[in-house]
Amino acid sequence: MAKIRPLSGFPEWLPEQRLVEQRVLDEIRARFESYGFAPVETRSVEPLEQLTSKGATDKEIYVLRRIHAGEGDPDTGFGLHFDLTVPFARYVMQHRGELAYPFKRYQIQRVWRGERPQVGRYREFTQADIDVVDLDSLSLSFDAEMPRLLAETLAALPLPPVVTGINNRKVLEGLYRGIGIEEVTPVLRIADKLAKIGADNVRRLLGEECGLSVTQADTCLAAAQIRSTDTSFVAAVRALGVTHELLDEGLDELAFVMGELADLPAGSVVADLSIARGLDYYTGTVYEAVMPSRPELGTVCAGGRYDNLVGGSGNVRLPGVGISIGVTRMLAPILAKKQLAASRSVPTCVLVTLPADEARGVARDVTRSLRARGVPTETYHAPAKFGKQLKYAQKRGIPFVWFVPTDAAAPHEVKDLRSGEQIVADPAVWSPPDADLRPSIVRSGAG
Amino acid sequence: MAKIRPLSGFPEWLPEQRLVEQRVLDEIRARFESYGFAPVETRSVEPLEQLTSKGATDKEIYVLRRIHAGEGDPDTGFGLHFDLTVPFARYVMQHRGELAYPFKRYQIQRVWRGERPQVGRYREFTQADIDVVDLDSLSLSFDAEMPRLLAETLAALPLPPVVTGINNRKVLEGLYRGIGIEEVTPVLRIADKLAKIGADNVRRLLGEECGLSVTQADTCLAAAQIRSTDTSFVAAVRALGVTHELLDEGLDELAFVMGELADLPAGSVVADLSIARGLDYYTGTVYEAVMPSRPELGTVCAGGRYDNLVGGSGNVRLPGVGISIGVTRMLAPILAKKQLAASRSVPTCVLVTLPADEARGVARDVTRSLRARGVPTETYHAPAKFGKQLKYAQKRGIPFVWFVPTDAAAPHEVKDLRSGEQIVADPAVWSPPDADLRPSIVRSGAG
Repeated sequence: MAKIRPLSGFPEWLPEQRLVEQRVLDEIRARFESYGFAPVETRSVEPLEQLTSKGATDKEIYVLRRIHAGEGDPDTGFGLHFDLTVPFARYVMQHRGELAYPFKRYQIQRVWRGERPQVGRYREFTQADIDVVDLDSLSLSFDAEMPRLLAETLAALPLPPVVTGINNRKVLEGLYRGIGIEEVTPVLRIADKLAKIGADNVRRLLGEECGLSVTQADTCLAAAQIRSTDTSFVAAVRALGVTHELLDEGLDELAFVMGELADLPAGSVVADLSIARGLDYYTGTVYEAVMPSRPELGTVCAGGRYDNLVGGSGNVRLPGVGISIGVTRMLAPILAKKQLAASRSVPTCVLVTLPADEARGVARDVTRSLRARGVPTETYHAPAKFGKQLKYAQKRGIPFVWFVPTDAAAPHEVKDLRSGEQIVADPAVWSPPDADLRPSIVRSGAG
Repeated sequence: MAKIRPLSGFPEWLPEQRLVEQRVLDEIRARFESYGFAPVETRSVEPLEQLTSKGATDKEIYVLRRIHAGEGDPDTGFGLHFDLTVPFARYVMQHRGELAYPFKRYQIQRVWRGERPQVGRYREFTQADIDVVDLDSLSLSFDAEMPRLLAETLAALPLPPVVTGINNRKVLEGLYRGIGIEEVTPVLRIADKLAKIGADNVRRLLGEECGLSVTQADTCLAAAQIRSTDTSFVAAVRALGVTHELLDEGLDELAFVMGELADLPAGSVVADLSIARGLDYYTGTVYEAVMPSRPELGTVCAGGRYDNLVGGSGNVRLPGVGISIGVTRMLAPILAKKQLAASRSVPTCVLVTLPADEARGVARDVTRSLRARGVPTETYHAPAKFGKQLKYAQKRGIPFVWFVPTDAAAPHEVKDLRSGEQIVADPAVWSPPDADLRPSIVRSGAG
């Protein structure tokens, strides 16, 4: 057998860790569905020209080659997708006559990036995305629905709190244009680095690279420092004294979104004018979420409004808005440190012991009866000593052990291995407490 | 935007189809967990030497190359896995000190094969596997547990009936050796083709390619025609008059497995001595399941006992047994023909209409209240005409529409769009019938 080793950047888990990941994914899916988002999965590959056409040429894409390909035909022309937005845009265009608009979909899948692995960066990881697209124009209500659903979903997960920052590209663009900046994109890119490189470096770069005057740069920096948990950011921007039509539009949109979210728990969303997002295709609202207790993880969820990503050929226009949850990015460091784990390493709630080979039939009947009532149950596979059978249950954290009588007249008994309590039980009616049916998620002290 | 097109061999579904696939996968997972199998996912890639070391050199593997790789470094050395057994064997070896034995795991993931697509063959598809491995030796009980769990799982799916054929390599090998055949593998390979090429061709090839006498070939063919739904196959094999130690062992094992399964519904399992399985690593029990109503799909589930696949280095020995369900192979043709579909294209059970912008707050409260009771609910995004809002629900098959009063003193009402019945309802207590909470699976006539 070939060398056995972990591959850097390709996380893998033991069952007790996978049970946590699975619970997190189930919870995310349930929340997405409670809002009426429909499930979609796309193929894992896209034609390379698709993957590289949306400003993603700097992405490290994995290209596929058939192992038996001939000399002259090295690649298939397909690459593994590096996010779920580009495949979704393609999916919508491909099926656009078969979908009902506004089309709300969620998509939870693995994505791949051929990056050099480092802290918080993976080469294979899972994202959970929600997006809405509509024909011609898309209601701003959806820009507000995204962070609401995100906040509700994240609050339901066994993870540290996450704060979602919201901005609007039109606010920044309008502001820049209002102070006479013509080339907006490079300014956006530099302003986006504020948290990483600090105000002094941003000011210097805005001068050196974009030719901004000190006054212009100071206005950009002053804007980037505006944050509010309500709509008071509007007054703060107005106080900068800049006017521009696009700025007004952006402020109206962002104020609507923040107003719609006023009932969310304090601290879950914040208007944050420093957020620009690197990707070209955002045209309005942008989102960027962080875990304040784990700043080293960086952005854990992100997204925004893209009015021109889908469509673009002829007169088809399908504006969209979406958010992506970086499931692996949030969860992997916590799982790796075992700060969360499942209460047992198997789904099994009851182990039915086997006292003798002759009891296989009875043990099977008990097992079937428990399973039929939704209780995950195993029969021990051989009539081994009871000590060995108990150890099987203990080692896996299985909470209950069932004793099948060898004498048909004797009663069945069930034992709670945690309390040690053992009672007579009827296999046709006994059920464990609901809380024991599935493994629960246990936080360790360091979590 | 690049050319938009489906890629042959990479199936993709509309939401109403994906809802069916998801329901099938949920059901499979629930059954696997009810038997205590623990969830595992492995990374999608394995080192190429791993993928090609287990008799799989004829597999068309997709190799990964970074798009920005240098001239001298064309490949990463990783390939996408083509099944879930090889990655599982690697996973067990890698984590062998951290697992509890016997280790029962299930794994539901996509796999990839760079094959030329044809009917029933895909380049990306989903498999659902169960396997058990143990240290040193593995109880034969598990050989019987596999087809039991498989039969129960398949019976719970909205699919045509599946019959699982069971054989034991030791029966065939013992029989072959008992009639003086020394090179068993080529005979197994040819015998395995019986269903495809017919008895005459098998007889001819056994003579031409393996040098078998007519009497030897006839015995092989006579054995391959033995089938029984109980343990009567033993007498039929004995009647061939061949004796060999390995044959006795195989017959005992297969009789035990069939005996353990005697309580399964008639026709779900059959001892079928024509089954050989192509893969080298099987050492005992082998399984092969077909859908009699869809013979063109070929083998839809398969597996077997492998005593030497895991381990092999030094004195580590981890015998295993497993079965793989070809989810895509079974489901894709049925989904493609729309013989199964979801009763609605969205998870949404209730659409809360929006009579006016001022009602957003009330509509949101109703929506939140319904969601909190587990009812997937959407608020219509804009105060459009009621006709338009109703059409939104109808187009998606959403069963209930909620009417928010514009006058605070007026009552809320809810309408069942199917019956037309409209009633006064209290948002704090009303719930739909349980059957309407999730989309149901609908069979079309042709199914």
